[in-house]
Amino acid sequence: MTAPNLAFSIPEYADRLARTRAAMQKADIEVLIVTDPSNMNWLTGYDGWSFYVHQAVIVPPEGEPLWFGRPQDVNGARLTTWLGDGSMFSYPDHYVQNPEVHPYQLLSGILRGVGHARARLGVEMDNYYFSAKCLETLRAELSDARIVDATALVNWQRAVKSEQELAYMRRAARIVEVMHARIREVTDVGLRKCDLVAEIYDAGLRGADGFGGDYAAIVPLTPSGRDASASHLTWDDRPMRAGEGTFFEIAGCYRRYHAPLSRTLFLGEPPAAMLKAQEAVLEGLEAGLAAARPGNTCGEMAEAFFAVLRRHGVEKESRTGYAVGVSYPPDWGERTMSLRPGDRSVLEENMTFHFMPGIWTDEWGFETSETIRIRGSGPAECLAEVSRELVVKR
Amino acid sequence: MTAPNLAFSIPEYADRLARTRAAMQKADIEVLIVTDPSNMNWLTGYDGWSFYVHQAVIVPPEGEPLWFGRPQDVNGARLTTWLGDGSMFSYPDHYVQNPEVHPYQLLSGILRGVGHARARLGVEMDNYYFSAKCLETLRAELSDARIVDATALVNWQRAVKSEQELAYMRRAARIVEVMHARIREVTDVGLRKCDLVAEIYDAGLRGADGFGGDYAAIVPLTPSGRDASASHLTWDDRPMRAGEGTFFEIAGCYRRYHAPLSRTLFLGEPPAAMLKAQEAVLEGLEAGLAAARPGNTCGEMAEAFFAVLRRHGVEKESRTGYAVGVSYPPDWGERTMSLRPGDRSVLEENMTFHFMPGIWTDEWGFETSETIRIRGSGPAECLAEVSRELVVKR
Repeated sequence: MTAPNLAFSIPEYADRLARTRAAMQKADIEVLIVTDPSNMNWLTGYDGWSFYVHQAVIVPPEGEPLWFGRPQDVNGARLTTWLGDGSMFSYPDHYVQNPEVHPYQLLSGILRGVGHARARLGVEMDNYYFSAKCLETLRAELSDARIVDATALVNWQRAVKSEQELAYMRRAARIVEVMHARIREVTDVGLRKCDLVAEIYDAGLRGADGFGGDYAAIVPLTPSGRDASASHLTWDDRPMRAGEGTFFEIAGCYRRYHAPLSRTLFLGEPPAAMLKAQEAVLEGLEAGLAAARPGNTCGEMAEAFFAVLRRHGVEKESRTGYAVGVSYPPDWGERTMSLRPGDRSVLEENMTFHFMPGIWTDEWGFETSETIRIRGSGPAECLAEVSRELVVKR
Repeated sequence: MTAPNLAFSIPEYADRLARTRAAMQKADIEVLIVTDPSNMNWLTGYDGWSFYVHQAVIVPPEGEPLWFGRPQDVNGARLTTWLGDGSMFSYPDHYVQNPEVHPYQLLSGILRGVGHARARLGVEMDNYYFSAKCLETLRAELSDARIVDATALVNWQRAVKSEQELAYMRRAARIVEVMHARIREVTDVGLRKCDLVAEIYDAGLRGADGFGGDYAAIVPLTPSGRDASASHLTWDDRPMRAGEGTFFEIAGCYRRYHAPLSRTLFLGEPPAAMLKAQEAVLEGLEAGLAAARPGNTCGEMAEAFFAVLRRHGVEKESRTGYAVGVSYPPDWGERTMSLRPGDRSVLEENMTFHFMPGIWTDEWGFETSETIRIRGSGPAECLAEVSRELVVKR
């Protein structure tokens, strides 16, 4: 058997597991079922587009975590995780998308088999891919277990990045720089949006500094004109038109680590209201970066940004960012901290965020954002270096 | 307000809604909560990468369905659905990824407000993005409602494709043809896999016959050599090597409609066992296509395929395909019918499947697949035309 191709050292994975177990103990959880693919990856290295079927990493009180999935993905677990063959369990293939049986019946059997039928069992109640039926099945099969909500328990352990994680995020930042450079180079009136998106993928995949890009957990969001009033439209094959702005919410990605970065481009003369919004956002970004330092809360950082917007008379109701790092579709955020007033999470060195001030009116959208790292002291570091100003092509 | 950019006619959406309501009635469901983004799209047209936050389409017994989502996505609903403004409901942005509150508290309030507090309520228990917490919240908020499992209720209505849906799938098939042509053209020893994937995206996005491509619900699966023993690995930035096979499981996509197609390529002299597997698979494919006709079951079609494999002494434990059509990540399948022995679903004209015979040994993987349409009579039609044989580059 060839050695698995791990993104991190064995001691780093061991440290992650230890931190997770400490959090489990604090929450009085004996066994944790992890379904978020980002958490599965962070704990074991597991990497593959198999999250469309039921799979999990089970963290028992001691020993190796158990990988649970489809038979045809066991080889993927062998090739990408640090786990031994004895820690891998699979369900028969006819359990895939078959309403008559459910993989969690077998997962329950595994838990019974290793003596956890009466355990205090943590599950990710409000995370991706842990369906309501998973919960119902566990309850039916393990009626003596005590099932508790462990949503985001592992996600929180991911908040402070290691040096190796930061190295990957910096590679992702180099990649997003070349993606935006390509956008500036090729965007023009008449270019079909799908051809522009092909250029964005080309830059993102060929990568930078010799490192090729991975797929980002969100596809490029690239709406133009009035479509840009909607925050999450993707693209179509219509040509780009004069007199329209387009925002590009994209990320560089390296070994599943993300550096998202949004910028906006206008073909023609931008409306005064957009320029006014830009002035507020750029000033607010600086205020937010200055407040993004250890000891401050996410809420305080957000407040520093929103105070500037209010002073400029620019309205924004949505949060202005979130923690970011390793991820899988559908979200590159970590789903822990949000940059919004009232979020009491305290910033620490080497936490990373997508600081994301997007303004969407009924007529257009404007985004300029940064992926940031909290420094030991002083204002946050922006991982990528791309001019923040609206790109105007006349 | 500009008119929304709908992929289908209003009568087609009305017909879909009527079919869904008939199925609801049959299942004694008064109100249906739809969270699968593919189902949301199929019923209302809604299109956007917003499924990383809670959202739903609510189908009441009569009148327009209700769209429920984040405030910043309401404009997306206006731009992509046939629904009126009065049918759109949003929750405050601080409900996003905030453990202290849950969007389904407000969704429950909407149901109470329109008189459905005691309704028989269908939910997609085992579908994407309906988390366990959604169910728990509904139960807590609507204690007089009767919540029943409506997993795949809408998915089943999607099984038989309309002429317009088939037109989109044929465009997707043209696109996947040019993607495979590009793979054959550029793959070579020394080419970094990420650069090859850039070529695949380039072909898929620029499209064919003047139609640009959309993002597929699964990224290209392109593992080489021993990595191809795992069915769902993606790519990295290592160069391709002589003596290795690579399978390419990819799809053309047009307006969210998919035409998946897998092929395998070998750089050098393919192992005898792979050629033997190919012989079985190609013969099995023909046998399966011949059995893929109205009146036969999915199980009978699968059995026709597996019988050939057994005769050749080739083992395969996993299902050999599934229904396919409109979709969003993480799966381009419809999660209804599976091409596996024992599946009693009866084939009907204009059902579409990804007929997917993948063979994964511990040493390599081999895939050659077809997206097929069930004809009115006779063997199934393959939507794309790409030579099925292993591509060998020496």
